[in-house]
Amino acid sequence: MNQKSEVPGAPIYAQGSGFAEEDNFYKEELLLAWRNRAMPLEGLRYPITPTGLHFLNVHFDIPEVDIAKWSLTLDGLVSHPIKMTLDDILRRPAVTTAVTMECAGNGRAFLSPRRISVPWLNEAIGTAEWTGTPLRGLLQEAGVNDKVSDLIFTGLDQGIQGEQLQYYQRSLSITDSSRDEVLLAYSMNGAPLQPQHGYPLRLVVPGWYGMASVKWLNRIELVSEPFTGYQQLQAYRYRQSGDDPGEPVSLIKVRALMVPPGIPELMTRTRLVKAGTVKLIGRAWAGRLGITRVEISQDRGSSWAEADIHEATSPFAWRAWSSTWEATPGKYTLCVRAFDTAGNVQPVSQPWNYQGMGNNMVQRVDVIVE
Amino acid sequence: MNQKSEVPGAPIYAQGSGFAEEDNFYKEELLLAWRNRAMPLEGLRYPITPTGLHFLNVHFDIPEVDIAKWSLTLDGLVSHPIKMTLDDILRRPAVTTAVTMECAGNGRAFLSPRRISVPWLNEAIGTAEWTGTPLRGLLQEAGVNDKVSDLIFTGLDQGIQGEQLQYYQRSLSITDSSRDEVLLAYSMNGAPLQPQHGYPLRLVVPGWYGMASVKWLNRIELVSEPFTGYQQLQAYRYRQSGDDPGEPVSLIKVRALMVPPGIPELMTRTRLVKAGTVKLIGRAWAGRLGITRVEISQDRGSSWAEADIHEATSPFAWRAWSSTWEATPGKYTLCVRAFDTAGNVQPVSQPWNYQGMGNNMVQRVDVIVE
Repeated sequence: MNQKSEVPGAPIYAQGSGFAEEDNFYKEELLLAWRNRAMPLEGLRYPITPTGLHFLNVHFDIPEVDIAKWSLTLDGLVSHPIKMTLDDILRRPAVTTAVTMECAGNGRAFLSPRRISVPWLNEAIGTAEWTGTPLRGLLQEAGVNDKVSDLIFTGLDQGIQGEQLQYYQRSLSITDSSRDEVLLAYSMNGAPLQPQHGYPLRLVVPGWYGMASVKWLNRIELVSEPFTGYQQLQAYRYRQSGDDPGEPVSLIKVRALMVPPGIPELMTRTRLVKAGTVKLIGRAWAGRLGITRVEISQDRGSSWAEADIHEATSPFAWRAWSSTWEATPGKYTLCVRAFDTAGNVQPVSQPWNYQGMGNNMVQRVDVIVE
Repeated sequence: MNQKSEVPGAPIYAQGSGFAEEDNFYKEELLLAWRNRAMPLEGLRYPITPTGLHFLNVHFDIPEVDIAKWSLTLDGLVSHPIKMTLDDILRRPAVTTAVTMECAGNGRAFLSPRRISVPWLNEAIGTAEWTGTPLRGLLQEAGVNDKVSDLIFTGLDQGIQGEQLQYYQRSLSITDSSRDEVLLAYSMNGAPLQPQHGYPLRLVVPGWYGMASVKWLNRIELVSEPFTGYQQLQAYRYRQSGDDPGEPVSLIKVRALMVPPGIPELMTRTRLVKAGTVKLIGRAWAGRLGITRVEISQDRGSSWAEADIHEATSPFAWRAWSSTWEATPGKYTLCVRAFDTAGNVQPVSQPWNYQGMGNNMVQRVDVIVE
């Protein structure tokens, strides 16, 4: 009844695609992978990601919100503290913007050694049309005291991280908070926010990694000192060691991804492609910056060929790119990389950091051409 | 620049919840976890799962469908072969049914040793309102030959599994296919199917594990011999070894799950609960069968107390249950189990099978009461 001897061990494939040879994954990493959701890369076909395909990162639990009891408070160093219901917010001026969002930990699974956290591959991405009211308008009405340096945004999701009991909280400077594009969003792709995306209200900070866009938002406090909470000083830092205070994680770095061509082998996701002209497509983005160039490699990044870049639909959303590849029989590792308007380009191998943040190493796609 | 010495190794917690002590996970399992999507258990609050929270299993790729070129063919041993566009199908009689769907591999990650496949925990579940036209009506119009034993359903997703190049294909007997509740579904929760859920058309077989509900359906062939394709004879079997032909996986087994109470520790998902009366809620289902009883344990299944069961909204959808727990300080492993109308009850420890199918072991939730 319990003959276990024939169960296979580790397959010998999946050797490419950026994994360290020796790495397996801990239970805790699997628990976090299943709590969160990646966008299958076929999703790159769509300029706006279908809501159910957008990446999802839930730090603690998805809170249960009784809308009759919910309100947003904006207080602290303001002349006129504000308390609003969702209906109040829905009556305010509305803006809709397409925004590409990415988790700061995207690519973490390819680092070695690897911080035990969400082991994202390349797919912690998505682009949605967010509708909401600009935060800037609320700040003007509240009257911001001259001493204000930062805004603290608090969500309703609560839990323990780093041995600290906390609500999820992040801050932004008054300058970053006052930018035109920062929204208090209540709608995603034309529908009310689904519970997992922050119902009834979330912050959307275009150009920033996803940790800034606090979900289940219920309080905004204006303060005169930098915020020292866990998610600000501990979790989202570029650090070289556990003692290194590091630099804060902020804007999304330049990145391109491709829809893997051909068809997959189920387990390894290695691709099988027929010889001939293969169309390669994908999207590229760089947070607040523009994309100037996208390049394709068929030899794991040794040589590169320029791809075509298509129209941008929003300053904060990805742009489509396309290219053709004359595929002849053999084994290849396809790569794609993008350049931004500040002259940044994606690295072929990923600089390491302690918490696995901002990993924009080029995507690698193992392909067998027959 | 690359000081790796301080990266933590495996945390020492996450010891409960059903994992085998020694197990880590292979790269291939992580790749499959990120290709698929689990329902965070907070989703058990909703009788109908928000579309973006429903579990998702994509065997190969999500195909790109040009609706202008797509059609459904029903052929083989019929008097009048049928070829229909989506518009043709939308004009047919429509039925909407709430159906709880579950992946046959749900719970696989808790087996030891473990088949290398999608390492589901407990969350490969969801309940949707599917709208479509009964397959039975089409079969009546086509005129089924007396020799027909089985129907082969073919989807547009293609790939390699078990070294076989294949479209995803499954069969059902003519008896199972002719049941009233079997739908050709084009809508999920009142909206057209999203690409990842089978746009433009999928089969929905209420009561069966998800592998029967073929997505991106484009052909139904009526045949007089049992189908011998990979997904029928290899993938979805209750086997005791690689040589054992085994029995086919078919109907969903009885299962109950709870919303984990209290708040989580981020990495281990261990729960922190305040002492006092704790309300426990969740859902229970048994495929085509009814639920007769739900029980709660606070001591890892040594003793049980009966929970309340609430109204059923559909014969094929889960039922809510609730209970209260007088929590006193200490460490607990909460369990829940359900009984069905055929007298089946969930096992406290999971009988092993080679491919990790139909694992309906009771859920275990580690809780610290303070």
